[in-house]
Amino acid sequence: MTRDDLPGRPDAGDLSPSAAKQAFLAHLESIRKRYLPEVLALLDDVLREAELGDSGLAEMCRYHFETGGKRLRALLPLLVADCLGEDPAKAVAMGAACEMLHNATLVHDDVQDGDEARRGRETVWHRFGVARAINLGDAMFYFTLLLAQRAPVSGERRAALARRMLMETLKVIDGQEQEFALRASSRPSMARYFDMIEGKTARFFVLAMAGSAELFGREARIIDGLTEGARQLGILFQVQDDVLDLYGDKGRDQRGSDIAEGKRSVLAVHALENAPPDEARWLCEVLDKDRAATSPADVERVAGLFDRLGSLPFAVREMHARREAALAAVAALGQASLSAMMQGISETVLEPIRDLV
Amino acid sequence: MTRDDLPGRPDAGDLSPSAAKQAFLAHLESIRKRYLPEVLALLDDVLREAELGDSGLAEMCRYHFETGGKRLRALLPLLVADCLGEDPAKAVAMGAACEMLHNATLVHDDVQDGDEARRGRETVWHRFGVARAINLGDAMFYFTLLLAQRAPVSGERRAALARRMLMETLKVIDGQEQEFALRASSRPSMARYFDMIEGKTARFFVLAMAGSAELFGREARIIDGLTEGARQLGILFQVQDDVLDLYGDKGRDQRGSDIAEGKRSVLAVHALENAPPDEARWLCEVLDKDRAATSPADVERVAGLFDRLGSLPFAVREMHARREAALAAVAALGQASLSAMMQGISETVLEPIRDLV
Repeated sequence: MTRDDLPGRPDAGDLSPSAAKQAFLAHLESIRKRYLPEVLALLDDVLREAELGDSGLAEMCRYHFETGGKRLRALLPLLVADCLGEDPAKAVAMGAACEMLHNATLVHDDVQDGDEARRGRETVWHRFGVARAINLGDAMFYFTLLLAQRAPVSGERRAALARRMLMETLKVIDGQEQEFALRASSRPSMARYFDMIEGKTARFFVLAMAGSAELFGREARIIDGLTEGARQLGILFQVQDDVLDLYGDKGRDQRGSDIAEGKRSVLAVHALENAPPDEARWLCEVLDKDRAATSPADVERVAGLFDRLGSLPFAVREMHARREAALAAVAALGQASLSAMMQGISETVLEPIRDLV
Repeated sequence: MTRDDLPGRPDAGDLSPSAAKQAFLAHLESIRKRYLPEVLALLDDVLREAELGDSGLAEMCRYHFETGGKRLRALLPLLVADCLGEDPAKAVAMGAACEMLHNATLVHDDVQDGDEARRGRETVWHRFGVARAINLGDAMFYFTLLLAQRAPVSGERRAALARRMLMETLKVIDGQEQEFALRASSRPSMARYFDMIEGKTARFFVLAMAGSAELFGREARIIDGLTEGARQLGILFQVQDDVLDLYGDKGRDQRGSDIAEGKRSVLAVHALENAPPDEARWLCEVLDKDRAATSPADVERVAGLFDRLGSLPFAVREMHARREAALAAVAALGQASLSAMMQGISETVLEPIRDLV
């Protein structure tokens, strides 16, 4: 099967939301079917390349990947490649690197957050201990770069890819650090929230999308447009995730687990910024309680506060604005297939909270 | 001041141990005086290059480096460069990368071992929390590679350096992982101990020494000889460190802290392998006790067991053999300045336990 046999990628930029989503999901599925096995084989192959001795690193790494996941980070660079008219096979190594990187952060995140389960299985630290989970994450950060070195492009482009991976990842880690600062502040500003999620969440999208265009040697205009589009998409993604936790009706164990965890979500930050001082203080106290000490009644009272302050409508307005900004940044590039992809991803991100927006 | 003004590097290969040590220390000092400020400036500069936002990463990184240290990893590549007749200034970026990498592992090690102090100051996790220390270490692993990218050599050699840093670091992490496996085994073998310290300790020396020769484009014979020499030197270094903890008379807070920590040192592994089953079981129990529960009397009883089993003479024989192997590997290269350096480092490593060997 050659590339031309792939189900045609969508390129009409003015589809209805539901048609855009359908077209994107069909495109994603065709890329997944054809290339995901190659990506997964590389993830396994790098364990051999690293010439590990008689330690548990490979076993723990395989265990972690068995928890599954949508592999969206793995497929995004391939989708972008296809939209650019390039051979997605050439982005397989980069897709594997993005997937490895995402999972490296998950292994360490689970330690940092004390999460004991991920998709129904024990997290690595819970099964193998904190010290070994730190080792595994460290190794996975470096496996990521071994994978990036396999990209079948010139040495110069490989060096640019490595540099981008380093710089974007440092922004991700920096965003995670900013989250701690946000938690320590009783009146965090919305500007700092957006800085934080731009690092923590959006730079992954920038890496996968703008990095793919860079891998194929596109001019700065295209890379910059995709950077801005991916940045806005990433922010949309995180705001959606924050809203879904409280207002979504599926996919989460417990309504408002972000509140129990004390997360500074878009809703919490909006409320802390806009509530009268005594209510802001009360909200901080609830957020800072131990997870187990937060009752369903606490969650409902916090939700009531969000309602009175208009935190949800604020988040919805942001999501609309971010979607528009993402689409506009890509539309300016004048490539219908990229526009269709961005429209399709945006609609797919918004789907679980469709009734709210 | 030009390179030629540096105090002459030693190149007689047949100095007395004490003269070899003195010559090496003078050489090290001249390199330190001239280049360490440049290395330290780079360590700080990379924090700017990473374009960090308003987070605590840079602050924590500076805090950690203020704990000091001998900066041996930073200087080794420069020493090797000088011995090869190259300009040490060209190895400054690599030296900075090695120093950053070493400290990345220290930040995570302190979390893993629960160590609350390092050189008289609070460790990063103890001051800023475990989650933030994990973030800092993650960032430092990537700062390392940004530093390596600054090496003033061709793109091809920079790519080779990056690859070597990835591969050697993965061996270091793998060695740390093997240490956990060793702790879980009641009768660990000496072969596994050497595998473990070859990763955990020796690959750092290989990176700094063989990596420097590679950076300057030396042929495979030189790189391989330095790899083997550095590997043996690293093992010597770790065995010395293990012995010093119990038999040294200075520099440590508490005699036998490795026993209290349950470390599988060369002495402990020798004893576990050679003791009668009931004594091996007893030793395991002592090693596996909580650090605070291990009394000075426990330490003395363990030391008595080591004495009866000849664990110290075994370690001393190993150190002699490793020193000879390191010197032989480098002597075969026929470069007097490299031989003098290796002899000088070996003697310096052995100095604190001179009375025993």
